[in-house]
Amino acid sequence: MLVVQKYGGSSVANPKRIRRVAQRVVEMHRQGHQIIVVVSAMGDTTDKLIELVKEITTNPSEREMDRLLSTGEQVTIALLAMAINSIGEDVISLTGPQVGIKTDSIHSKARIIDIDTGRLQQEINDDKIIVVAGFQGINEENDITTLGRGGSDTTAVAIAASMNADLCEIFTDVDGVYTTDPRMVPEARKLDAITYDEMLELAHLGAVVLHPRAVECAKLYNIPIHVRSSFNHNLGTIVKEVTDLEKDMVVAGIAYDLNVTKIGIFDVPDEPGIAHKIFSSLAEKNVNVDMIIQSAMRNQVNSISFTVSQTDLRHALNVVENIKDDIGYKGYTHDQDVAKVSIVGAGMVSNPGVAAMMFEALALENINLEMISTSDIKVSCIIKKELADIAVKALHKKFNLGDENDSVCCCS
Amino acid sequence: MLVVQKYGGSSVANPKRIRRVAQRVVEMHRQGHQIIVVVSAMGDTTDKLIELVKEITTNPSEREMDRLLSTGEQVTIALLAMAINSIGEDVISLTGPQVGIKTDSIHSKARIIDIDTGRLQQEINDDKIIVVAGFQGINEENDITTLGRGGSDTTAVAIAASMNADLCEIFTDVDGVYTTDPRMVPEARKLDAITYDEMLELAHLGAVVLHPRAVECAKLYNIPIHVRSSFNHNLGTIVKEVTDLEKDMVVAGIAYDLNVTKIGIFDVPDEPGIAHKIFSSLAEKNVNVDMIIQSAMRNQVNSISFTVSQTDLRHALNVVENIKDDIGYKGYTHDQDVAKVSIVGAGMVSNPGVAAMMFEALALENINLEMISTSDIKVSCIIKKELADIAVKALHKKFNLGDENDSVCCCS
Repeated sequence: MLVVQKYGGSSVANPKRIRRVAQRVVEMHRQGHQIIVVVSAMGDTTDKLIELVKEITTNPSEREMDRLLSTGEQVTIALLAMAINSIGEDVISLTGPQVGIKTDSIHSKARIIDIDTGRLQQEINDDKIIVVAGFQGINEENDITTLGRGGSDTTAVAIAASMNADLCEIFTDVDGVYTTDPRMVPEARKLDAITYDEMLELAHLGAVVLHPRAVECAKLYNIPIHVRSSFNHNLGTIVKEVTDLEKDMVVAGIAYDLNVTKIGIFDVPDEPGIAHKIFSSLAEKNVNVDMIIQSAMRNQVNSISFTVSQTDLRHALNVVENIKDDIGYKGYTHDQDVAKVSIVGAGMVSNPGVAAMMFEALALENINLEMISTSDIKVSCIIKKELADIAVKALHKKFNLGDENDSVCCCS
Repeated sequence: MLVVQKYGGSSVANPKRIRRVAQRVVEMHRQGHQIIVVVSAMGDTTDKLIELVKEITTNPSEREMDRLLSTGEQVTIALLAMAINSIGEDVISLTGPQVGIKTDSIHSKARIIDIDTGRLQQEINDDKIIVVAGFQGINEENDITTLGRGGSDTTAVAIAASMNADLCEIFTDVDGVYTTDPRMVPEARKLDAITYDEMLELAHLGAVVLHPRAVECAKLYNIPIHVRSSFNHNLGTIVKEVTDLEKDMVVAGIAYDLNVTKIGIFDVPDEPGIAHKIFSSLAEKNVNVDMIIQSAMRNQVNSISFTVSQTDLRHALNVVENIKDDIGYKGYTHDQDVAKVSIVGAGMVSNPGVAAMMFEALALENINLEMISTSDIKVSCIIKKELADIAVKALHKKFNLGDENDSVCCCS
């Protein structure tokens, strides 16, 4: 079996943990499997590097930032390869550029365009364990790029897809995917399985166990992902295509996201192409827009609200400023004191009334809904940030997620 | 003027110093010069990485070690490029592989085979300041290699040579090249100029201001090197071809080396090809042998002594063990409790009796000479390690090196 394993920063935070990962990799290899291991930077390496940058400049070049941050994974692959080698297995470490992970040139959040599998295949044929630096690739200019935070997940899944791997294991510091954040709701329960789409919504919505691009890629190539703990041998959560089990399960989990800002643009002329202008300008600056709401027309003017992550706020406001004359709006506001809570479930599409149950639960807690957005498998609401905790608990209870026997069919 | 500048680890030890280096580089660029800056890893980065390795394994793969250590310079180039950019100059950082510094595959002490100047020339034509990672290159297998400690000097000079630079400035934490180690002899005096050959001997002999391969390369391509402090604007020492000044100066400096081990092989058959067998076997394992002495024949057997650096000792003893049956010697010893002291001067060749003056000075201090080796521009003696201090002081005094007016012609 060809297995791609990914170990995150906390799993390789120090030499002792790296030796433990090596042991685990070697065990798997000695069972006769072919292994490609993808690793992140050790523990707080990235934060320490960012601290150094702050002492140099407030406005670092993104190309140089990518160069700097990509060193973290290079350190890990060298140390892990040494550790595996010291147990007596043949191993080779490869950087993103050495593997041939080709990306576009959007530094700090590059997307993988192609993976050259020649080198990987050659080393696998030589029965070597391969250790690959996650999070990084190389662009057309031969410059190193990074895939953004959590990008090592994407590296792992993209390699699994390109190599036709049988399984992709994502090792992390939690036991798997939970019905909601266990730190907020003690009754939260680990899910044995979840669909790609559910995971995609959960990841996008702030349950940061898996990077969303990783899930998209896994879904596209139908690679099952096993999310599990690197600190024990328990089974975690399998992320895969829809099965009967999940179809029955209306709401699989409750997600929340505190890293969200609401931006409102007022008195926008009601003309064709206005929304296009706003959101293409934001896209050009690589600002990811999440929810978008256009209010009903009043006197030939609209108002448009949308949400972005707080990290993109400065870029987003710059864009809004710059298009003022072009669009002719009257003003804008932004509010960082908000949160997004969501219910996610692949079974929702065939169960009308789920959204209404959500609104009811929130209303009973006197929580006002500032924005609502729905899809086939999720309903999200923007609420005041300080009410997020109450909302998540209420929803977890409403959909009986703490109780394994009841949760599946309670709303059908 | 095209200038290559190299800043060592202590000059870029922290963000504040990196900003100071950036300022200095930008000043030079604004005077109208084209600048290529080569940098080492920050301060004790390399030592910290080696500490991590010790917690992983006692016998790391050299390929992985090179990968690990080469990250240090990548961090520095990113930070320095950010600092230069924040002052408002156009800058680009390049790793050894990105420049196209091609080396052989001897990890941890690779030699530069070729430098592709295309990328450097292109960025210079665009009037960019270029920041290059020292100490590293890329081999035929597309793996990163390192040039060994001090290899950033070699990077700087090799780039200066391949780019036909007008000057190569090596910035360090001392003011230049001294007549001997100022920490040992307070009267030690900074030299204004020194020849390549003298510097080569001084570097090889333990005055570690400049990496010997850097000097060899500078000599070969006739690139003047200015060794100077990064902490002030004083002129340092110019290393260049012989001039009248140095021809007059019999002894330019006193060097010592404590990182030396004497190995003796006893009762070696007196047959042709024996020395070849021993030293070619050592060369195959990349052990650098320094002094070699073959004793007078006695009963058809010889004894051969040689010195290696303490870091190469383990490799050297392995080789000696392995060739025992082949050569048929009786036994061997090794002694780490030795030091090498040397007098160096380009004028020595035309001044007979200089070696005798050296032996006289050492004899007056009751220092026994265990090995002697001479060349046109130096005389070296192996002595007991604990006498090195006394020997250096005595020689410095004997050749009047502390006094600028007297030193030149005292022995002619």
